[in-house]
Amino acid sequence: MTQPADRAADDRLYFDDLRVGQRFLSGSHELDVAQIKAFARQFDPQPFHLDEEAAKDTLFGGLAASGWHTAAITMRLMAERGHPIAGGLIGASAEISWPQPTRPGDILQVESEILDKVPSRSRPDRGIATMRSETRNQRGEVLQILTAKIVVPRRTAGTAER
Amino acid sequence: MTQPADRAADDRLYFDDLRVGQRFLSGSHELDVAQIKAFARQFDPQPFHLDEEAAKDTLFGGLAASGWHTAAITMRLMAERGHPIAGGLIGASAEISWPQPTRPGDILQVESEILDKVPSRSRPDRGIATMRSETRNQRGEVLQILTAKIVVPRRTAGTAER
Repeated sequence: MTQPADRAADDRLYFDDLRVGQRFLSGSHELDVAQIKAFARQFDPQPFHLDEEAAKDTLFGGLAASGWHTAAITMRLMAERGHPIAGGLIGASAEISWPQPTRPGDILQVESEILDKVPSRSRPDRGIATMRSETRNQRGEVLQILTAKIVVPRRTAGTAER
Repeated sequence: MTQPADRAADDRLYFDDLRVGQRFLSGSHELDVAQIKAFARQFDPQPFHLDEEAAKDTLFGGLAASGWHTAAITMRLMAERGHPIAGGLIGASAEISWPQPTRPGDILQVESEILDKVPSRSRPDRGIATMRSETRNQRGEVLQILTAKIVVPRRTAGTAER
């Protein structure tokens, strides 16, 4: 079930509220050549992210966004909308893959699912949830799969049950 | 053994040249409050990355860089210096963890090691190398561990052996 985008801040989900199979949907973001090159100049200055002509002779066969740019936009989309995790989205570790390149004109959207949840052994005030987030373009092609361990606070005596 | 930083472009390493245990060292980059907030505003607008006061009451206990900012700087450092992989640094997938937060004033440097190399079954012109990259600060504290599968071209008939 997708969460409504307009949840109030006090309706955020604590570890206790999460359930395996729960799904979250972000808004969307359109990527253009200028954004791809600006990110690349700052963080990933390689020809296939910087120059259409030079990119043709590379493994990408044309201009492609840095995978870290796709990851950063994914983070932005999740932080903005549809992922109402109490305490924010804080990752301890993750697996990430890029099944195909992100291209100019792609409109990115993120759908996430809770795969697992485990209370922390050392810290009774929190738990670790495993969240799988697929970043897709407007054609439904999967550009990135992120499976992250996120740290989520537990409800305390002072936190009302939902 | 660390690679010299000034390798000529025609001295890049092909799949055939890589050996397990080979190490690479990047240059360094100092992170400040302005960079942390600028990245956060664009890609990870959460209080612990945007505002010193608000960050105090969070799991981070103070302003911290987005993990994706640490990842992006790591990419920049590897692309700039000391990681002379033929065809560029192209990741297909990775595991990433952030053992501790990146803080204002941290000076980041990346050291990488080849853990494994496997020829591609479907594409005889390339192979997959597993590269583990530790991003550390000036005190040697490990801020990020990235273990990436990178795609590396093989030498062809037209490529001189080293």
